[in-house]
Amino acid sequence: MKHTKVIDLLNNTKTLQEVTAKGWVRSFRNNQFIALNDGSTINNIQCVVDFENTSEETLKRITTSAAVSVTGTLIESKGKGQSVEIQVTKLEILGDSDPEKYPIQLRNRPSLEFLREQAHLRVRTNAFSAIMRVRSTLSFAVHQYFQENGFFYVNTPIITGSDAEGAGEMFKVTALPFDGTPRTEEGKVNYKEDFFGKETNLTVSGQLEGETYAMALGQIYTFGPTFRAENSNTSRHLAEFWMIEPEVAFNDLDANMDLAEDFIKYVIKYTLEKCEDDLKFLESRLLEEEKSKPQAERSEMSLLEKLKFVLENNFKRVSYTEAIDILKNSTPNKKKKFNYIIEEWGADLQSEHERFLVEKHFKCPVILFDYPANIKAFYMRLNENTEPGKETVRAMDILFPGIGEIVGGSQREERLDVLVEKMKALGIEEEELWWYLDTRRFGSAVHSGFGLGFERLVLFVTGMTNIRDVIPFPRTPQNAEF
Amino acid sequence: MKHTKVIDLLNNTKTLQEVTAKGWVRSFRNNQFIALNDGSTINNIQCVVDFENTSEETLKRITTSAAVSVTGTLIESKGKGQSVEIQVTKLEILGDSDPEKYPIQLRNRPSLEFLREQAHLRVRTNAFSAIMRVRSTLSFAVHQYFQENGFFYVNTPIITGSDAEGAGEMFKVTALPFDGTPRTEEGKVNYKEDFFGKETNLTVSGQLEGETYAMALGQIYTFGPTFRAENSNTSRHLAEFWMIEPEVAFNDLDANMDLAEDFIKYVIKYTLEKCEDDLKFLESRLLEEEKSKPQAERSEMSLLEKLKFVLENNFKRVSYTEAIDILKNSTPNKKKKFNYIIEEWGADLQSEHERFLVEKHFKCPVILFDYPANIKAFYMRLNENTEPGKETVRAMDILFPGIGEIVGGSQREERLDVLVEKMKALGIEEEELWWYLDTRRFGSAVHSGFGLGFERLVLFVTGMTNIRDVIPFPRTPQNAEF
Repeated sequence: MKHTKVIDLLNNTKTLQEVTAKGWVRSFRNNQFIALNDGSTINNIQCVVDFENTSEETLKRITTSAAVSVTGTLIESKGKGQSVEIQVTKLEILGDSDPEKYPIQLRNRPSLEFLREQAHLRVRTNAFSAIMRVRSTLSFAVHQYFQENGFFYVNTPIITGSDAEGAGEMFKVTALPFDGTPRTEEGKVNYKEDFFGKETNLTVSGQLEGETYAMALGQIYTFGPTFRAENSNTSRHLAEFWMIEPEVAFNDLDANMDLAEDFIKYVIKYTLEKCEDDLKFLESRLLEEEKSKPQAERSEMSLLEKLKFVLENNFKRVSYTEAIDILKNSTPNKKKKFNYIIEEWGADLQSEHERFLVEKHFKCPVILFDYPANIKAFYMRLNENTEPGKETVRAMDILFPGIGEIVGGSQREERLDVLVEKMKALGIEEEELWWYLDTRRFGSAVHSGFGLGFERLVLFVTGMTNIRDVIPFPRTPQNAEF
Repeated sequence: MKHTKVIDLLNNTKTLQEVTAKGWVRSFRNNQFIALNDGSTINNIQCVVDFENTSEETLKRITTSAAVSVTGTLIESKGKGQSVEIQVTKLEILGDSDPEKYPIQLRNRPSLEFLREQAHLRVRTNAFSAIMRVRSTLSFAVHQYFQENGFFYVNTPIITGSDAEGAGEMFKVTALPFDGTPRTEEGKVNYKEDFFGKETNLTVSGQLEGETYAMALGQIYTFGPTFRAENSNTSRHLAEFWMIEPEVAFNDLDANMDLAEDFIKYVIKYTLEKCEDDLKFLESRLLEEEKSKPQAERSEMSLLEKLKFVLENNFKRVSYTEAIDILKNSTPNKKKKFNYIIEEWGADLQSEHERFLVEKHFKCPVILFDYPANIKAFYMRLNENTEPGKETVRAMDILFPGIGEIVGGSQREERLDVLVEKMKALGIEEEELWWYLDTRRFGSAVHSGFGLGFERLVLFVTGMTNIRDVIPFPRTPQNAEF
């Protein structure tokens, strides 16, 4: 008979009917109670086995992660925390799972680190199935927000011939061999012989291409993989991660900040509504994890409180100049507790400063804007009427508690002459970006956009602390298994 | 004043109010009528300029693709094909577009080929803006279908250390230099020194990783970029394209075919409803294009008729064995009109055979299934009880008129011993795919999935004929511009 998903069985109030469920054994208690999970929800359905009429051999095969099919009567459950259970009349083992060999034994309390080496199996645990369902829901919320608001999804290229994006170190993409590499007469690598006839890399951002589409379709967004070949072995960096980059014609920086704040609140609200059970589980997981920490390091708010706090409060908008004043006069700066002491306007903010502003000073998400021009990218809109030596650009970063920078964006420089001069000063070839400059040559206009690192958002919403735990198969230095 | 999007102005029946619109000039007629477009819809809003009170200099700057802001009164239009227009009281040129330099002049009837070289600007034309809006809507329909049906979105890795996917030639991803490449003592490239500590490539499919997630979350799908380093300079191949790969635990091949057919019909229906104006435009574009073709080569159905036909008819399900019989007895086979004459069971079908089945014989989408084992991939489920030498696997391909193969899928081999034997026969290292085999070692079960090349779907829905015209920045041999 056709099987029913566990989530549908648990929501079913029509008892006494015959049902079939298929899934994986989470646990088997007293030779009688199977907790069966099929991934459709974090909740298991209890299947009560008629152990007196089931062979010893079959009972022995009901092990953690074995795949089984059970048929029986759906009845009201007398157990706690579950409305219905299945009184099993037929049990079939679809696929065994040898308990001597199955790597994830909960009684061994596997560490997150160990589970990363079992990335293909960790999603069978409660925590990782919850994280990945939340990730999926957040992804959909991203699409739904933009589509409902008249944005068009654009797939910018992954392999790029442009090396002027300037957001970081790039991976080379090539079909050339290391042995017998084709060479020019001067002995250089002859990229004309490569697949694309030129040097190509993996994209670090779809922004520049996205801008060309915004200047035609008005409002666009990307949501795709981006790459950094940086040797950053931290809990906040991945070599391959997913980025969301909206770009809007005729938006100035204020409208850009409004968009980012509204967007983030929407996707969190949507996920709170759709993933209640998963988030409650992750909340209790976090509480459990923090029990081993000293009081001072524990979160002040529970996971759900933290998410609701973000929804209910405005992000604090602070100019870079104001932020520098706050930091200069702050206790950790005066007492030289910061590793980098803030001495004057123009300093690049480090993560310790961002954390101080967000976690100690404002205690809410913060949008910093109007940064010094010389610490930001070439395409950002130069502010007018600034003092010489104190030029600023219409950049903004959104900082989140526990996460740090989650969004980086700006109003873009729409004036061809200013943009070209800036590129010249930085040694970026005009010919390299002829197509980007065309958007300023033909029908240029004010426009703005931002990038949001999707995994950092998933970190925030799930309460996890290592970015490798919120993407199915993390790519980091020395690690491309699976 | 805040501007209103063109799509909202055109749907606005509250006339006589003051409005502002911003966008790009599509055309300027009689020194008076601006057709203004902002990308929100294929339709322009007519802006009537008070030319007697506008300087000659300003009027001259109203050129194709110039960005302008107009403020004025929204009034009922007397013109044909538009309900409202703007009686302009204030006009501002935001960004000029020098008509001597702007590359896309419609009076020159730019070819699709020329426009490909202007991929950053072609989206400002009616045809490409329509295509890209349809593409965006189709993308969202994909996500919505799966999410509504309880599938979870999974981001499988783009950079892969696994070279056993076997779906085609791969691009190398590396941070090693061609000059002074680190070498082992034996003189081989020392990939231990590379970023990931091993040889890595761009993925050709997320299926194998997707399967591991399906065996935990039950129903999953991927939707991301995939790559082929094949020198195929055709109108149907890209080096970088987007693929959708659902995978479902406990689904057999029949359920897999049901899913694929239901999915395709859903996304087409959704797009027909949401993109009526764009599809009507593309339909007329196609009609226009086909006028230059001899009668015999023109489509029998208009674009919208074709799309509705797919919705209203069942896909014809035909076994490979039946298909071979049909082909063997077909007129083109007997008259030796095929380039590859079908002589016996076991032959691999060429695109000419697929086209005959779909376009001449069945005249509808066709699902071919149960292919000979030795022309299909190692992970496909071997059928039981077949004659020796006539082993088949539970594979299916969906063939579409004008497009050819749009879906390739299968029930997966869930039996560890059969799978291992198959891999051995093909020389695929077990150690290479230890994690994939784990899904068969621990809680294995029947499961199935398929891959759908997204650009082929966009081709079908938009009626375009070259795959380079349905992705923003196509990547093909010798081409990675932008």
